[in-house]
This record gives sequence, structure tokens and C-alpha cells, in this order.
Amino acid sequence: MKITIAQLNYIIGNFEGNLSKMIDAVEKAISEGSDIICFGELATCGYPPRDFLEFSDFIKLADHSIQELTKLSHEIAIVVGSPSRNPVVEGKDLFNSAYFLSEGVIKYVQHKALLPTYDVFDEYRYFEPATSFGVVQFKGKKIALTVCEDIWNIGNENPLYTICPLDEMIKSKPDFVINVSASPFSHSQAESRMHILKENTERYGLPMFYVNHVGAQTELIFDGGSVVMSPNGNIHKEMSYFEEEIETFELEDVIQGLQNRPQQKSKIEKIHDALILGVKDYFGKLGFKKALLGLSGGIDSAVTAVIAQRALGAENVRVLLMPSQFSSDHSVNDAVVLAENLGIKYDIVSIQEIFDVYTKKLDPIFGDLAFNVTEENIQARIRGMLNMALSNKFGHIVLNTSNKSEMSVGYGTLYGDLCGGLSVIGDVYKMDVYRLAEFMNKDTEVIPTNTITKPPSAELRPNQKDSDSLPDYEILDDILIQYIENRKGPQEIIEMGFDEALVRRILRLVNRNEFKRHQTAPVLRVTPKAFGMGRRMPIVGKYLS
Amino acid sequence: MKITIAQLNYIIGNFEGNLSKMIDAVEKAISEGSDIICFGELATCGYPPRDFLEFSDFIKLADHSIQELTKLSHEIAIVVGSPSRNPVVEGKDLFNSAYFLSEGVIKYVQHKALLPTYDVFDEYRYFEPATSFGVVQFKGKKIALTVCEDIWNIGNENPLYTICPLDEMIKSKPDFVINVSASPFSHSQAESRMHILKENTERYGLPMFYVNHVGAQTELIFDGGSVVMSPNGNIHKEMSYFEEEIETFELEDVIQGLQNRPQQKSKIEKIHDALILGVKDYFGKLGFKKALLGLSGGIDSAVTAVIAQRALGAENVRVLLMPSQFSSDHSVNDAVVLAENLGIKYDIVSIQEIFDVYTKKLDPIFGDLAFNVTEENIQARIRGMLNMALSNKFGHIVLNTSNKSEMSVGYGTLYGDLCGGLSVIGDVYKMDVYRLAEFMNKDTEVIPTNTITKPPSAELRPNQKDSDSLPDYEILDDILIQYIENRKGPQEIIEMGFDEALVRRILRLVNRNEFKRHQTAPVLRVTPKAFGMGRRMPIVGKYLS
Repeated sequence: MKITIAQLNYIIGNFEGNLSKMIDAVEKAISEGSDIICFGELATCGYPPRDFLEFSDFIKLADHSIQELTKLSHEIAIVVGSPSRNPVVEGKDLFNSAYFLSEGVIKYVQHKALLPTYDVFDEYRYFEPATSFGVVQFKGKKIALTVCEDIWNIGNENPLYTICPLDEMIKSKPDFVINVSASPFSHSQAESRMHILKENTERYGLPMFYVNHVGAQTELIFDGGSVVMSPNGNIHKEMSYFEEEIETFELEDVIQGLQNRPQQKSKIEKIHDALILGVKDYFGKLGFKKALLGLSGGIDSAVTAVIAQRALGAENVRVLLMPSQFSSDHSVNDAVVLAENLGIKYDIVSIQEIFDVYTKKLDPIFGDLAFNVTEENIQARIRGMLNMALSNKFGHIVLNTSNKSEMSVGYGTLYGDLCGGLSVIGDVYKMDVYRLAEFMNKDTEVIPTNTITKPPSAELRPNQKDSDSLPDYEILDDILIQYIENRKGPQEIIEMGFDEALVRRILRLVNRNEFKRHQTAPVLRVTPKAFGMGRRMPIVGKYLS
Repeated sequence: MKITIAQLNYIIGNFEGNLSKMIDAVEKAISEGSDIICFGELATCGYPPRDFLEFSDFIKLADHSIQELTKLSHEIAIVVGSPSRNPVVEGKDLFNSAYFLSEGVIKYVQHKALLPTYDVFDEYRYFEPATSFGVVQFKGKKIALTVCEDIWNIGNENPLYTICPLDEMIKSKPDFVINVSASPFSHSQAESRMHILKENTERYGLPMFYVNHVGAQTELIFDGGSVVMSPNGNIHKEMSYFEEEIETFELEDVIQGLQNRPQQKSKIEKIHDALILGVKDYFGKLGFKKALLGLSGGIDSAVTAVIAQRALGAENVRVLLMPSQFSSDHSVNDAVVLAENLGIKYDIVSIQEIFDVYTKKLDPIFGDLAFNVTEENIQARIRGMLNMALSNKFGHIVLNTSNKSEMSVGYGTLYGDLCGGLSVIGDVYKMDVYRLAEFMNKDTEVIPTNTITKPPSAELRPNQKDSDSLPDYEILDDILIQYIENRKGPQEIIEMGFDEALVRRILRLVNRNEFKRHQTAPVLRVTPKAFGMGRRMPIVGKYLS
């Protein structure tokens, strides 16, 4: 028996486009003599459809895609995820289902039981959990159909659920398992995924066909990396990351378990590739081509520019250099060198004159109050406005260049450097921004060394350095990771050996700056805990603030 | 037996402050000879604590508050909501619990079974649902303790849950029901709540003590209106709205059901009062006093200014009038009259000179490209920047003045008129903004009649009117309500008699402008479906866009 995995890039709500892509894959699989083709979770509508699921019209369109695929299921069986209606009055209106289509009919539907409702996931918002479990009979084989999280209650130290679907299905003695998933990228996700797959094959002794999505959906980047695992725990095939792929496997080969084809990439390379896909799909799926950003000569905007150029092509990236009286000469020089290295168009617009007219107009109100953060913010906001003006005139999307360390402690100006349609490196800690820059320079110097080695500065007042207001980024990042990603309280972090006053100050800054993050662009997610939909904090509150 | 309801205004994460407020209430109840005092859901930590619940440190502080209250429970029993730890490894780590404290010990804990996970609610993100149900024995009475949603599975046409806690508890023959709630305001919520309470008393024939929170928590406004209902369905007491109140009731009086004291307020009056509390608490709980906004002479900023003045006092509200070459004379006049009527400080800063220097600096890049939305946005953004400059210099919070109709279709400039720390009327449709203005003027003309009667205009180009780009607000609002609040698809809305092309255009605008709403301030929620945490939409997608 031959089984095809179709690892595809869907667009949320683009039923026609998604269906047409699946039909092409079905035809390819048929031409390869495949018996079953498998698509991802909620593949008809794309993942995550979020509150579109509350529209009856939206579900009707998903049902239509299922009908169309059903018609194609004479020569090949089709496994595909789609929302389905719950016929029972009590409980949520929908299920998150895996359909098994064969011989022109819907042969079987298995609903998802374990509904992730944590971090970026909201599935219990929409779906009723499955309570019954079976297997599909097909060409003399029994198949256990599972949806994403349904295989994730094994091998966890702190399981979130009280039931385990495969423990039920195994009673019917299946021959293999298919899992239709939509599992978003973080730099540690592929490892966790492989661990879970191994735990499952070890527990049940069955071959596993794990199908993931690929492609970015606003902040979530689906990395692909679909897996075929043999019953002995060998990785028969770890499919491509960050690109579409359709491949057909012979079940008997998988059962034999002779192959072992894992892939390895470093954390930084994975982040690099993920961000490029994130930018590419944000633009492509919105129907935009061109990006604009402010280039300061610093490392954050440099790394962002490189990602943009690699994602969109040099001809589609434009930068503004916007020096003020506080900008050092090397800032403009470094930015020019980078723009030339990247082959992207740049303009230099001094903000001095605009700044002067603002201060003149505000003078009657401000009187002789001293220069302070107000005037620093005015500079940052003039730059934001100039970026937006070009964006409006020429149809660019402005890229936000803030890193995660800055965004955490609110070191940035709302409507100034925090503006932009997409935050490219807002989930990358400053120390990893340096590592990304080094990775980008591995073959040839793209980012000027001076940009990497000079002390970070916002250059909004004379001789300003980030280190005037913030601890060294090594220490800051370590504290932030403990608080944000590991959810440690102040006492626990202090007990790790960090300075008490510093820990309390950093945590206070993180909490008090929630209001800024509430108003910033969606952040491409590359860590297990990114700002945005996966981290939901009160703005008004008194905890550690 | 005497039962006290303490309807209090908590601050999220301010354990010390919340505890001290509860201790005062306990002392008051003891002095009134009460037997039981009841606080709201998750009263120790405030509601909604959101992802702070994932911090073990946070739960420890809540447990400490329970310990302190337990010590006070010798003279009076205390019913209080707090998170509690799930001792079982499998399942979520926490329960959402109602504690019954008496005789210096924890007598009973009833966990919540029905975990709202829709709209603004995320409870299954944090909590394991209860599976066992009992009653508390106290002074010869049996009490059914329930938490908020646990009584909401009765009387709904489309129940979200498959179980019903009181159906279980009733088997133990309780004498009355206590419900600890945190039920946020919308203009129709008090009515729904009363409907549910009546359905419960009719079904079980028991008196009901329903305790709500009061006070705003960022976007959510808890309106109070706690209810004591007699077994015959009479409203024994509907407590105050939008203010704290502590009142003690004699159980026998409630059982007799002779009283019937409901309250009535119009939808617009409720919205008016809710917005005032929303602004007041946003500032008060963040430790701010002073608000700033741009006054255009139009109705949206006028209504926002009145709310700010009523919430914070005239001495704490300041406005900027920022005319351009496109502003009509009456705009400045109307704004000045309003500021004088309100007794608030105003300054006039022309934006012309700043606009000119922007266009001069952009001229080398823009060349002879025509004036378009770019230049309109520059004007709006200069105003936003001037507001922010004063805010930074003097410590104001800038109030966003956009209404829901505009925000829906993206009729507003990101980082321009969409800036501000709090969106005051972002959940009020334009037609209701007019009704609010009339309500504000009911005793004396606060908002100049001209502001109310003139055709709405953004005044960003010569003779601009909202009606150049948008349909009449009566029609726009009706379509928006069908799409946003009632979640009707395009076909259903067209079948109601609206123009097909218009419906498709409006729905497309709503969907395509999700990116702007992603970056705007938190919106005070006054309808059942507000923008923000309660409406979660993909930015990148192709559905109706």
C-alpha cells in the first residue's frame, strides 16, 4: 500500500485556492499509484481560521470543499482535515475533524479529542471534543486517524488532558496511524515533535504518518517537516522544512524500518529560514510585494533588512536613512554600506528640520521645560511618519525592526520605531539578533562589522547608549527568558543568582509596558512564547508592576 | 440567617489591596450580624487575571489571601472565589473555585464546571472543569455553591455544555444557591443575566444570591447589579450598577418573595455610565489622573471629551485643537465652545507649518505625484504626534476618539487619529454616538448643536465628507451589526434587503482592516461583540476580502 503525504501551504479562508492546490496533489498522487493521500488539519479552510469558524457561511464553504474532494476519491482515498458540524444541540457547534474519503463517499470521520487551549491555541473556543474513537477499514488494513494534539498526551511530564485517543483506538488493532496536524514553528518545536512521535511508536509499535502544514499565517509559521516513522522508532523520512513537498511512501518499507533519514539544522539557521518564510508569506498572501524600513546603522534594522531582501528580493526592498543631529557619522555610513551590499534602494532624509518646527510649534506650550524623553520620542515618531508616508505613497508595507529584548522592557517609541505592519524580529532576543547577523555573514560580509561590534544606541540624545538605561543584553535576555518563557516568579529568578533589584526592575518594566505591545504589529513567532496571541496579559493590573 | 453580598471593585494582581478591601467588608458584615458574606469570582486576584495564572508565584499569593480570610471566618462564614491547584497530574493545573471558609478552616471548595471559552473568555486555557458536585452544610442549611457560568446552562437555546451543575447539586436538596460571578457589561447583559436567574429559580424553586464584580479591568467593565432572587422569581433586590455596594439580606425575607425591586435604565444611559466607569478605572488603577485628546469640532471627539470630563473632572482633561488649511471655521469654534462648556483647558496649534516641512522634505522622493491619502494621513499623524508630545511632557494618557463604525471599515489613520492609550467609544456605533450626545445634552447643551447636526467630515482635503467614502451611517451600522455582532454571512445579509455590492464592499473593508485594529488601543466593551480580545480574526486571509 502506498501513502502520500501532501505538505502544503494554505491560505486561510481561500477555499477555492486551497481546494485547487489539493486537487493538483491528488492528481500527482494518483499518477504515482498511491492508495491514500493525506492533507493537514483544517486544510480546507487553512489554520488557524480563528473566529471565522463562528460564521455558518464559512463552514458551508468548508463542507463544499469536502464534497468536491469526495468526488475525486474513486481512484484514491483522501484523508483531509476540515471543521464539521456537531449535530447534538448541547455542546459546541463544531468538531475539528479528519475525514476519510473513498469510493466517492465519506467513509469515516474521526473528530479531535484533545483541543489545545493554551499559548497561541484556542480550540475549545470553537470545538466540542470527540468522545468516541474507531479505526477505518481500507484495502484490508485498519487505520487509526488522529488529529494533531490527539497524539500529544504521551511522553509529557505534565499532561494537559485526562484521556488518550490512541489508547482507545489501539483496542481495534490498527495497522498504522495517520496524524493530520497544523503545528506551528518555534526553534524547539521539531525536537518536541520528534520526541512525541517516538514515544507514540514505542508505546503502540505502529508506523506513523505525520502530516504538517507549511507556510506562515500572520504570526504563526508552519514549518512543515512532516514525518514518516517506522514502528521501531526510526525516522523513515523527515520531510522538507519551510517548503511545500508531496511524497509517496510504500507502507511495507516503512514497517521494515531500515531507513533513518532525519535532518539537522542549528537553532539560528532555523530561525533565519523561518523569518524569511514569515515575511514572504505575509506579503504574498496579502497581495503585497514591496517592503520599506528605516535603516539606522544599528544591528536590528540591519538584520531585518537582510531578511526582507532574502524574502522579497532586492528590487522589492527600500530603506530610509533618517539621521538627526544626534546620529553619528558611522551610522549613516554603515547603513549605506549595508544597502549597497544588499543592492536595495535607499534615500537619506534628515529629520532635523521637521524636528525643529515641532519644537517651535510646541514652544508656547512647553515653555522652558527641559529636553527629555518627549523630544526623543518626537524624533522616533518623525521617522515612523516618514516611513509611513512612503508606504502610503508607493504601496510598501513598513517592517518593524524592534527585537524581543527591547519590546519586553518597552525600550521603543509607540508610533515611532514601534510602527510597521509586521514585526520581523520581535520574537528574537538581542543576543540571538547578534547570532543571526553572524550567520548572515558566514559566507561573505553582508552586514558591516562595525554594525555588529559597536555598542547599541538609539541615538536620540548626545552620546546615548542602550547600556545607560538597560543592563547588558546577556543578563537582560537571561532574566527575560526566565520570566517570559519559563514563567518563573521574581523569587525563583533571584534564587538563580540574579541581582534582586535588577530582577524586580526588569519584571516591572515588562509588566508596565504591556500597553505598548498591545499596539504593535503582529510578531513572527520563533520561540515557544512570543508576544501577541500566545501571551495574554492584563494591561491594568498591579502584579509585579 | 443573614447573608451579605459584597459587590467590590478589585485590581488584578493587587492581592494586598483586594484582601484589605475584603477584610473591611467582613468587618462591616459582622457588625450587621451577618452569618455569611459572599465575594465574587476569583476575587482574591481580580478578574480576568489572564496569563498571570500561569505563574506559580501568582497562585501562591492567591492562596495566601485565602489563608488570611480563613483566619477571619470564626464569627462569619466567607464565600470567596480564588484559583486553586489541581492535585491530579493529568489535566489543567488549576481549578476556578468557590471557597467556603468557616470556623477558621476551609470547610468546602466547589470548583467551576462550565468554563466559558468564547468571546472575551479563555477559562479552559487555565482551568480543569469540576466533575463532582456537593452542597455545604452550615447552621442547619444546605447551600449550593456555584461559580458564574455554572448556572448559565439553563434557558439557553444553544447550550454550550453537556452537563448542568445544579442538576447534580439539587439531589442533595439545598436550601438556597450562592453564585459568585465576574460578568462583564454589555448593554444587553443585565437583561440576559436576569433571564438566566429567573430560569434557574423557576427550575429549582430556590432563592438565589448572585454576586458580581464592579469596576473596569482595561477593556472589560464589570457593572455590578448583583441580584437576590426569591424562589417565586421575584427580584428581591437588584443592587447598584457601576458602584461598589455591600448589603445584608435576611434569608426568610428572600424566601417569602414579597419584594420586587428591579431597576431600569435605557441602553444609552447604561453605555454612558459604563464608559465613565471604564475611563475612571483605567486611569485610577494605572495611577494616572490626566487625559488629553484632540478636539476636532466633530461629534466623536466631543462625546469622548464629555465622558473624560465626567470620569476624571474638568481639571484633569486637556484638549488640543489642531486646525489645518482644510479645517472649517466652525470646527474650531465648535471645539472652543465645547471646551468652555466643559471648563477644560485647551490650546490651539495649527499643523500647517509642520505639514509644509514634511512635504518639503518628501518632495525629492515624491516628485510631482498628486496629493492623495498619503498627505491626508500625514495631517492625521501630525495631530497624533502633537497629542503624544504633550502626553509625554505632562503625563497625560491620550484618549482615542474613534467610533466603532469607523474602526470597522478602517476609516482612520494608524498612528494618527487611531493613536491613544484607551479607545473610549471604539465599541459605540456612530448612530449610538449621536444618541449619546443627545443624552449628554438632555439637561443643558454641553455639546454644541452644530457639532451634532453638521455632516461628519475628517476635514483632510477640501470639502471632504464621510459620505464621500461611506454609505449613510444608518445603513452602515445595520450591516456592521449583522456581520460583527450577529455573525451573518454576506448572503444572509443581502437576503435581508441590503444592496449586494454594498454588503460585499463593507464586509471586505472590515476584513481588510483587521491590521489596523490589531494596533489600536484597548476598546471599552459595551456591546456583546467588541473589537479586541473578544473578536479574534486572522490578519492574513482571503475570506470575504
